[in-house]
Amino acid sequence: MISFARGVPAPECLPVDELADCARAVLLADGRTILSYGSPSGYEPLREWIAERHGVESERVFVTNGGLQGFVFFAQRHCRPGARVLVERPTYDRPLKILRELGAEVVPLAMDEEGLEPDALEAALADGPTPAFLYTIPTFQNPSGRTLSTDRRRRIVEIARTHDLLVLEDDPYGLVRFEGEPQPSLLDLDGGEHVVYTSSFSKTVAPGIRVGYFILPAALRAELEATSTSTYITPGLVGEATVYEFTRRGNFDSNLTRVRDLLRARRDAMFEALEAELGHTGATWSRPQGGYFVWLDVPGVDAAELLGRATDAGVTFVPGTDFGGAPTTARLAYSFVSPDEIREGVPRLAALVPSTATL
Amino acid sequence: MISFARGVPAPECLPVDELADCARAVLLADGRTILSYGSPSGYEPLREWIAERHGVESERVFVTNGGLQGFVFFAQRHCRPGARVLVERPTYDRPLKILRELGAEVVPLAMDEEGLEPDALEAALADGPTPAFLYTIPTFQNPSGRTLSTDRRRRIVEIARTHDLLVLEDDPYGLVRFEGEPQPSLLDLDGGEHVVYTSSFSKTVAPGIRVGYFILPAALRAELEATSTSTYITPGLVGEATVYEFTRRGNFDSNLTRVRDLLRARRDAMFEALEAELGHTGATWSRPQGGYFVWLDVPGVDAAELLGRATDAGVTFVPGTDFGGAPTTARLAYSFVSPDEIREGVPRLAALVPSTATL
Repeated sequence: MISFARGVPAPECLPVDELADCARAVLLADGRTILSYGSPSGYEPLREWIAERHGVESERVFVTNGGLQGFVFFAQRHCRPGARVLVERPTYDRPLKILRELGAEVVPLAMDEEGLEPDALEAALADGPTPAFLYTIPTFQNPSGRTLSTDRRRRIVEIARTHDLLVLEDDPYGLVRFEGEPQPSLLDLDGGEHVVYTSSFSKTVAPGIRVGYFILPAALRAELEATSTSTYITPGLVGEATVYEFTRRGNFDSNLTRVRDLLRARRDAMFEALEAELGHTGATWSRPQGGYFVWLDVPGVDAAELLGRATDAGVTFVPGTDFGGAPTTARLAYSFVSPDEIREGVPRLAALVPSTATL
Repeated sequence: MISFARGVPAPECLPVDELADCARAVLLADGRTILSYGSPSGYEPLREWIAERHGVESERVFVTNGGLQGFVFFAQRHCRPGARVLVERPTYDRPLKILRELGAEVVPLAMDEEGLEPDALEAALADGPTPAFLYTIPTFQNPSGRTLSTDRRRRIVEIARTHDLLVLEDDPYGLVRFEGEPQPSLLDLDGGEHVVYTSSFSKTVAPGIRVGYFILPAALRAELEATSTSTYITPGLVGEATVYEFTRRGNFDSNLTRVRDLLRARRDAMFEALEAELGHTGATWSRPQGGYFVWLDVPGVDAAELLGRATDAGVTFVPGTDFGGAPTTARLAYSFVSPDEIREGVPRLAALVPSTATL
């Protein structure tokens, strides 16, 4: 089975040997701290490293057991049942599920190749009660791979200020850039009055290390900290301290270069195979400069139905409808598979696209 | 400051060097598994080890980021607002807080030196709607240090069967026994139809490793697993695999012997000091054969008021009212402090007890 479904790094992206050494070293150096209970906001040296990288005070950094756990705390704090939450269409499926379980009214906003459409945001703000927050993944979005343009970033921050809108900027993929100039984050543009920022080390170090973080106003951090204390007392300090040791040794940036190279080769293989196999059809796909995902749209094809036949043929993906997308769309992850598997899997998939989809 | 407040192990209880070696070894051996996403029920080899130790199938084992996180999942599943939950009086304060935040009606049941009183349980069952569950810590209870007698264990399991009552048996301290014969767990007596069992490696290995677990019916595990997936995708596998490696090397039992010796010396110092300093007064205290805590009752003294003066004098504890106990009670943890600190702290505390409390 060739999996374009798994939005996880390929095994060779994981810096196994280095993390093994880092875990041992930091346990020997600081074991009595990290093997006991500690701050519910996470391992202090790592909080300071994150704070410095983002140019904020460390009291604004809240480290959690992966980014999703932080999202749960944030959403529990901000969503009473019936609260409106604005999201992109399509967007990451796990937050959608969490928001719905909290009883939120999820309002999807249109996107195009430049990301979230500011006009759609303004229309939603004009059209109903003040939303609890806007959830956005501006860079190499999951699932679409799209990136919000710099002009739109400025406009969205302006809109947030005008309407006193809270924005949650989820940025796990931003550093996994293969080419092109990075855009400023919404947090950078806003300073943090209206924007809460979250990222993790899942894509830059390893997902299994389960270390995510938030940058938010210190008062809000104190509130979320009360919840984390009531939930798990202290997050996983061994993982956090291992990540810290990894950064302290200077491994973070060199590993990121290595990971970018491994993923760029996969993205390139995906682009080439899609062009060769579907370039002559009406199919379109996003052109990410980083991240894990390509968003495929094959007019006339029901992606959920295609998935059934694709699975029989030994290739899988996630239908776009799982993310609130159109029935003709699909998320293809190139992160987990090898370039050779991509070169084998895309033709296998393309062979199943009915000729009626061809222009 | 001498802290009888901190219910955590003394630093020398933590097997720092061994865990450092275990973390490195298991990352080298199985890094590609534990550094990626995995089962939301935890690291499979550890689940199998736990299952074998308890004589159950591994599909009944659910491993979480510390025991409290599992309690939160369990309580969220079982407590709708207004649900009755039976607890011991006194009991561990964190679950009380979680239950109240979920809107549960918390019904405290009387205890004596033999633990929870079965008659109080029967009276509560006769007196209102069927409770969502009974939460009990039968062995070396937090905060009282008391242990439920074997006869009462049998009776409570019988009552659970008769009334189809769900019992959550929390047993983090059971293995930290200094002397005496272990009682059977409620799980052992029941088999698991009415009893869900939870424990952790916080007291046997290290709290900062954040590994707790539940033993429950496989169908309930599948339900809680859906919640864990939606909360953090995968628990902290690095910590779990490190614990597994610790057990695989045979360190678990030898470390437990070492920890028991360290804690027994503290408990003995506490008993001796209490006898010398308060033996001639009307004060009474529990006589635990294991665990972390002694429950002190000083008739005529308001423990919360005493705490203020004690803190000024450089010694702290937690007033019993924090656990739902009487105003005259206090929890003294002997786990964190050294025997010398205990010998210094108890007289300091006793000197503040007014002579009106003396018989």
